[in-house]
Amino acid sequence: MQVSAKRLRADIEANAQFGVLPDVDGHGRTVLTGTDENKRARDRFVRRLEDAGLEVTVDAVGNIVGRWVPPGADPSLAPIAAGSHLDSVPQGGIFDGPLGTYATLEAVRAMQETSNSLGRPVHVVCFTEEEGQRFGNGLLGSSVATGRLSVEEALSLEDESGTTLADSLERIGYRGEGHIDAAEWDAWLELHVEQGTRLEEAGAAAGVVTSITGITHCYVDVRGEANHAGSTPMHDRTDALAAASELILDLESSAHRIVSSESSSAVGTIGKATVSPNATNVIPGTVRLGVDIRDIEAASMEALVADLEASGERVESERDVEVSISRPYDIPPEPMADRCREALLEAGASTGIETLRLHSGAAHDTMNVARVTDAGLVFAPSRDGISHNPQEWTDWEDCASATTVLAAALATLASE
Amino acid sequence: MQVSAKRLRADIEANAQFGVLPDVDGHGRTVLTGTDENKRARDRFVRRLEDAGLEVTVDAVGNIVGRWVPPGADPSLAPIAAGSHLDSVPQGGIFDGPLGTYATLEAVRAMQETSNSLGRPVHVVCFTEEEGQRFGNGLLGSSVATGRLSVEEALSLEDESGTTLADSLERIGYRGEGHIDAAEWDAWLELHVEQGTRLEEAGAAAGVVTSITGITHCYVDVRGEANHAGSTPMHDRTDALAAASELILDLESSAHRIVSSESSSAVGTIGKATVSPNATNVIPGTVRLGVDIRDIEAASMEALVADLEASGERVESERDVEVSISRPYDIPPEPMADRCREALLEAGASTGIETLRLHSGAAHDTMNVARVTDAGLVFAPSRDGISHNPQEWTDWEDCASATTVLAAALATLASE
Repeated sequence: MQVSAKRLRADIEANAQFGVLPDVDGHGRTVLTGTDENKRARDRFVRRLEDAGLEVTVDAVGNIVGRWVPPGADPSLAPIAAGSHLDSVPQGGIFDGPLGTYATLEAVRAMQETSNSLGRPVHVVCFTEEEGQRFGNGLLGSSVATGRLSVEEALSLEDESGTTLADSLERIGYRGEGHIDAAEWDAWLELHVEQGTRLEEAGAAAGVVTSITGITHCYVDVRGEANHAGSTPMHDRTDALAAASELILDLESSAHRIVSSESSSAVGTIGKATVSPNATNVIPGTVRLGVDIRDIEAASMEALVADLEASGERVESERDVEVSISRPYDIPPEPMADRCREALLEAGASTGIETLRLHSGAAHDTMNVARVTDAGLVFAPSRDGISHNPQEWTDWEDCASATTVLAAALATLASE
Repeated sequence: MQVSAKRLRADIEANAQFGVLPDVDGHGRTVLTGTDENKRARDRFVRRLEDAGLEVTVDAVGNIVGRWVPPGADPSLAPIAAGSHLDSVPQGGIFDGPLGTYATLEAVRAMQETSNSLGRPVHVVCFTEEEGQRFGNGLLGSSVATGRLSVEEALSLEDESGTTLADSLERIGYRGEGHIDAAEWDAWLELHVEQGTRLEEAGAAAGVVTSITGITHCYVDVRGEANHAGSTPMHDRTDALAAASELILDLESSAHRIVSSESSSAVGTIGKATVSPNATNVIPGTVRLGVDIRDIEAASMEALVADLEASGERVESERDVEVSISRPYDIPPEPMADRCREALLEAGASTGIETLRLHSGAAHDTMNVARVTDAGLVFAPSRDGISHNPQEWTDWEDCASATTVLAAALATLASE
């Protein structure tokens, strides 16, 4: 079985023209759900699925499925599914999502050109709104496909201007009917760019993911007292930003401690700080911090949250501020299925492509799918680990190598 | 000599109706330079100056002067001037500015009703755009009156929508000719609300300012590397917000050290922090901090800036971030003139009103005027130290007491 590096590259380059950023260095695109760019990207993908003889359906939240029943396969058997997404972050790169989507189609084309006999149908899947840049938290299409979000809840989500997902999909002709049920799939695979540097450092062309880290988001509200920077003596201040700075440094220390003692994959980040009134000459009255905690071990995530809470209590008592912590978003770590990992590792071995075992610190639709069926995730290298950026890059030969691993693993799974 | 508490209150309450915030708790107003509210406030002030027989002129940047030549005074002698401003911050209070402006008019009325013979003219002054909320850094009218800013530079300043000061003053009929020259004044006094709690704590009705602190604004740019919060291991991060947090805590420590060892009036504040990209799931790539440093001693201001620079160098070497510090705004401390301080202290003693010596941590137009002639500043108490807020409040009897001190001091200075 031979994937065509040329055909795959042509697909990704053609897709990269939708929402292209011509005046930005690198290879950038902006493709938000329900926009004209998104419609053009979807239309081309559907056409390419049909060119390959696949039967295309669109569900109520715009998830696209191309179904291929290999010659001699039993169409009543649960299919093997694979795919990714076509939406991007604003000013994102051209590989994050499209590589996995078109690599799956390329894998099907390669299987079609081979005489292997496969027992099961193969589904090529494009999930809606993975990035969550227009409607909510992300992983939207896979949340509906795995029962975490109802079709009605999803369709009523609104963007900042109050437009619903329903209306935005209707407008571009991608509000279909029913919904994908990922639990009906025999297994699922996704190819994605690594968004890290471990493959590049190891010189490996493909990474077989062992686990996807859990993610907790906490919001920390620090309330002090806004006051005049000139007329308020140092001893009479309740500075919310100074208090927040202690919390930021405490979380960083906690994460380092846990990395060196409990779990080397743990990370803790305070990526967002909103200061009010945020004027140079006013002592900050309130600060809101956005905290991101991830690990493949649930216990170390809990340890980081506990440290954050302890830090909040210490700062409250020492600085007379009020600290409140909410935790609205919490997804447990998700190990990949043994049979999917094995299929990917064997695929690397049989095709002579070096693979590396690693975990994923980034969330992917696979995280949702893994809760309802056997799932696997394979990474292609990201140059310098850059993603969500026009500088995102994966060499074309690496794209082809990772697609070869995906195709061989799909063939194995579809033969079982 | 007797000031009328009732007449003063009526003026301040009438002025408080311009830009009034009816739906906000307290007594709020928004009066930005060149707006309809500003025109109405100015029109009424001019009418009240004329009602008292003063000769009104308006200069090219909208500064208003009411000139009174006391019976028997030599009109060729340099005048004693006093006043404040009528503009406010958005959702500001009703005393900050209007108290000093109308108190000066009330002082003139009280002097008119008294048989004391005065040797010099007295000027009642309203400076344009003290708060700097629409055109630039503030203290605008007094900057022109003291030669720090040319009329042309001032008139060409633009608000956020691109409207110039010239056009905004023209529109409301307050673009006059020439400009006030504060250097021609024999002396200057300003009455203002304290915006702090020292008078309230001491139970004194008036504060005689010894010095106005200098102000330095520094901007600190911390450049790290934005990266994925999930896929970037702890050891591989250059987190600009964690680095900035060290700078924030370092500056706070430095200020406390200087307060306890060198100068109890020193303050250092980081009031503004702008994080980029400021997303919970992205390691911060850059942070810009706005730093405000003030003291009545130039040496301790320099010590704080030096500590900030040393902290930046330490953080650069320890965290691999880049730190650059600019210092675009630097005004030295300004001691008040002995004769003005003496006149105010004696005025308190002779009228039986308790005064307190204190420094001003807030900037005032007096800061500019003090560079070109003898200047004094007197404070009225601010309840709970609150200002720039509809909760700003000064009891009416305290307004009258501080105005009595102002009037007696003006009479003394005009007799010299």
